[in-house]
Amino acid sequence: MHMNELILKKRNGGIHSNAELTYIVNEFVNGLIPDYQMSAWLMAVYFQGLTAEETASLTKAMAESGEQIDLSSIHGITVDKHSTGGVGDKTTFIIASIVAACGVPVAKMSGRGLGHTGGTIDKLESIPHVNVALTKDEFFQIVRNVGVAVTGQSGNLAPADKLLYALRDVTGTVDSIPLIASSVMSKKLAAGSEAILLDVKVGSGAFMKTYEDAVTLAETMVAIGTHNGRKTVALITDMDRPLGQAIGNAIEIAEVVDTLQGKGPEDLVTESLELATNMLYLGGKGSYEACKCLANTTLASGAAFTKFCELVEAQGGDTSVLTKATFKEAQYKEAVLAPVSGYITHMDAEICGRAALALGAGRYTKTDAIDYKAGIWMLKKTGDEVVAGETIAYVQSNTKSTLEDAKARYLSALSFGAAEPSKQPLVWARVTEEGTEAYI
Amino acid sequence: MHMNELILKKRNGGIHSNAELTYIVNEFVNGLIPDYQMSAWLMAVYFQGLTAEETASLTKAMAESGEQIDLSSIHGITVDKHSTGGVGDKTTFIIASIVAACGVPVAKMSGRGLGHTGGTIDKLESIPHVNVALTKDEFFQIVRNVGVAVTGQSGNLAPADKLLYALRDVTGTVDSIPLIASSVMSKKLAAGSEAILLDVKVGSGAFMKTYEDAVTLAETMVAIGTHNGRKTVALITDMDRPLGQAIGNAIEIAEVVDTLQGKGPEDLVTESLELATNMLYLGGKGSYEACKCLANTTLASGAAFTKFCELVEAQGGDTSVLTKATFKEAQYKEAVLAPVSGYITHMDAEICGRAALALGAGRYTKTDAIDYKAGIWMLKKTGDEVVAGETIAYVQSNTKSTLEDAKARYLSALSFGAAEPSKQPLVWARVTEEGTEAYI
Repeated sequence: MHMNELILKKRNGGIHSNAELTYIVNEFVNGLIPDYQMSAWLMAVYFQGLTAEETASLTKAMAESGEQIDLSSIHGITVDKHSTGGVGDKTTFIIASIVAACGVPVAKMSGRGLGHTGGTIDKLESIPHVNVALTKDEFFQIVRNVGVAVTGQSGNLAPADKLLYALRDVTGTVDSIPLIASSVMSKKLAAGSEAILLDVKVGSGAFMKTYEDAVTLAETMVAIGTHNGRKTVALITDMDRPLGQAIGNAIEIAEVVDTLQGKGPEDLVTESLELATNMLYLGGKGSYEACKCLANTTLASGAAFTKFCELVEAQGGDTSVLTKATFKEAQYKEAVLAPVSGYITHMDAEICGRAALALGAGRYTKTDAIDYKAGIWMLKKTGDEVVAGETIAYVQSNTKSTLEDAKARYLSALSFGAAEPSKQPLVWARVTEEGTEAYI
Repeated sequence: MHMNELILKKRNGGIHSNAELTYIVNEFVNGLIPDYQMSAWLMAVYFQGLTAEETASLTKAMAESGEQIDLSSIHGITVDKHSTGGVGDKTTFIIASIVAACGVPVAKMSGRGLGHTGGTIDKLESIPHVNVALTKDEFFQIVRNVGVAVTGQSGNLAPADKLLYALRDVTGTVDSIPLIASSVMSKKLAAGSEAILLDVKVGSGAFMKTYEDAVTLAETMVAIGTHNGRKTVALITDMDRPLGQAIGNAIEIAEVVDTLQGKGPEDLVTESLELATNMLYLGGKGSYEACKCLANTTLASGAAFTKFCELVEAQGGDTSVLTKATFKEAQYKEAVLAPVSGYITHMDAEICGRAALALGAGRYTKTDAIDYKAGIWMLKKTGDEVVAGETIAYVQSNTKSTLEDAKARYLSALSFGAAEPSKQPLVWARVTEEGTEAYI
């Protein structure tokens, strides 16, 4: 097998065998295929695409390129959850607490944030003393004892994906659906859970800007999971405005606590229950309807909040601070006022995320430090009526100089109008191996 | 300007500015654009193409990436000639001799052969003592004194092309018409002639297998020349069978001598006169019809042969051997017999070239040594009637063990049939900046 011939095959619209894709991934990871051949192949893939079988084979080879976590010692059907990345998306903590409280084990490896979307690990780390770099033994033990653990991604999970992503990032080959899907799913396969729930975001704050692209990505990822023996479901959820009221780290955890205590904002509660229902379903807890009822009950009873506290404590965190005002307040805080009266007709979620980033809540580059208290608290969102001069949000940071810029950025993300905008759904569709069910 | 953005621009079907293409070529030559970005861009170009303006700008930047020969000190309109490569193609010597004899100066830099097509420099080097590595001063002096010189390509002519070609060769991006055209034309622009005649081969022995591809390549190259202020004409000529009777080095020179002495095979004579006519036309020697008459007369009068001898002697060669049998004979020679009676209905010219290569007439890799006496002498070609057992060709080599293999290869290139095949034209079309005139 010669890489030049494989490039030509894909360039001319040919279909790779499983052996060819395994060869490409392995030789590349071993440094035997140079970057310049790999990038030409990636560009050919961008134009010619990959079939479902090709994508599944590529992903499998990527998953097998490094360490593969064996979760077989954990009792029950382990279920993983992945979001394609959103602004204000703190659902992981809510749904992991619900499903773990119902006896479905969650062994969650998460990433840090970069750019306008926050990272689950960064948010968790805003809780004093929490350990987000568990050893493998600690991780397994907490999952066994508590039913849920959340830790940073292992350095050696799907190394092929790291190498490929770094190359795609500088060769114009990021936005190819089979390549995006294989990147996400290779890490999920290597992380070892038996079932996978995918939350594919669509809208102004998401990587997928259109419903059609989001569905294609979701279908591609579900097919990869299914081909590789993992029960996989994807929900297409709204990211045309930030989720909930908080964007940041500590304030998002505070909102998680509110939600688990029954005081969460409607959109966050609704979406979290829908995701939790599907995770319970994947975890073998009965029919979709039975799981929906179970999720609602577990949230309402306070069992999910108890589970969240157990998780934090098992990872060394201090839960006593979570409900205190000092946990979520930064040194400086300013109100954002409505510039006009009328309705908020649209929010550009990506720009909202960038406003929080400007406050210090995120990273521009991988080595930036985070201000865990920085963020935005939104009082009014898309569809809400406002009066000129009314406070519609607060921006907060420990660096005073960031506030004015962040306010301006945040306001630039909002559109106002006289007419009430039509209501958008929170969950657009559900994709399973049986097909795609649109909710719209 | 960032290369990643330029890759995305081309990938998405954008049109590059002259400044962008100059940036890409210069930064790449200076090592500031890595191979992996260049190969991704080349693959994007393969799929999205380049406009005529883009191709002209790219070629200009490539031509300007290294030394550019200044031929302004040479009297008259200098005319260069380039063939896209064929089997048995020795026309350069014939037409350069004709046009130089008519006072049109020819300063010709040529390459060596690789694979199934022979190289002009290798053929010339089969003449004892000929110097094919002239210094610039020697080269200019011979062009001024004799009107024609043929030397090996300078090491620093269009270095961007060398780097790009090496990368294209291993990244599945060779067969893109704008990239092929820019590769050829960058060297022609840098070589400095005021006018350029292109011989674009089409058929089984050519890089372009179809008439449509050959016309597109020819039109692209003529547009590049015209955009860059060089008068350029292209002929589309037949390479669906080898040209003339000889394939090799010394035996091709012997055939050149025969032709210049009025004893050449019809196809070689016809095609050479057509090419010479166009070179004279580009050299400002009057109308096409006047140039045709001039070419015929100059060949018939022996003036072209005299000019060829002057060229060889000026470059240190011994012309006394040219007409001797020992010049063209190898140590071992065997007849190839017709396996059946009937007509030769087709010859695969590339396989004929590979048979000569197997005899030692060419190189598999750049460092292989050549057997200058090795080659094939064809007595019967496409359209000729043969009787089973009749000698249809001779194979010759200084390595006896090559003969059987070469005979088998040569025979495998031939198709036989009972019916006389229809006659194919030698010159298919003529492409000028005014348009394409098909002769078929």
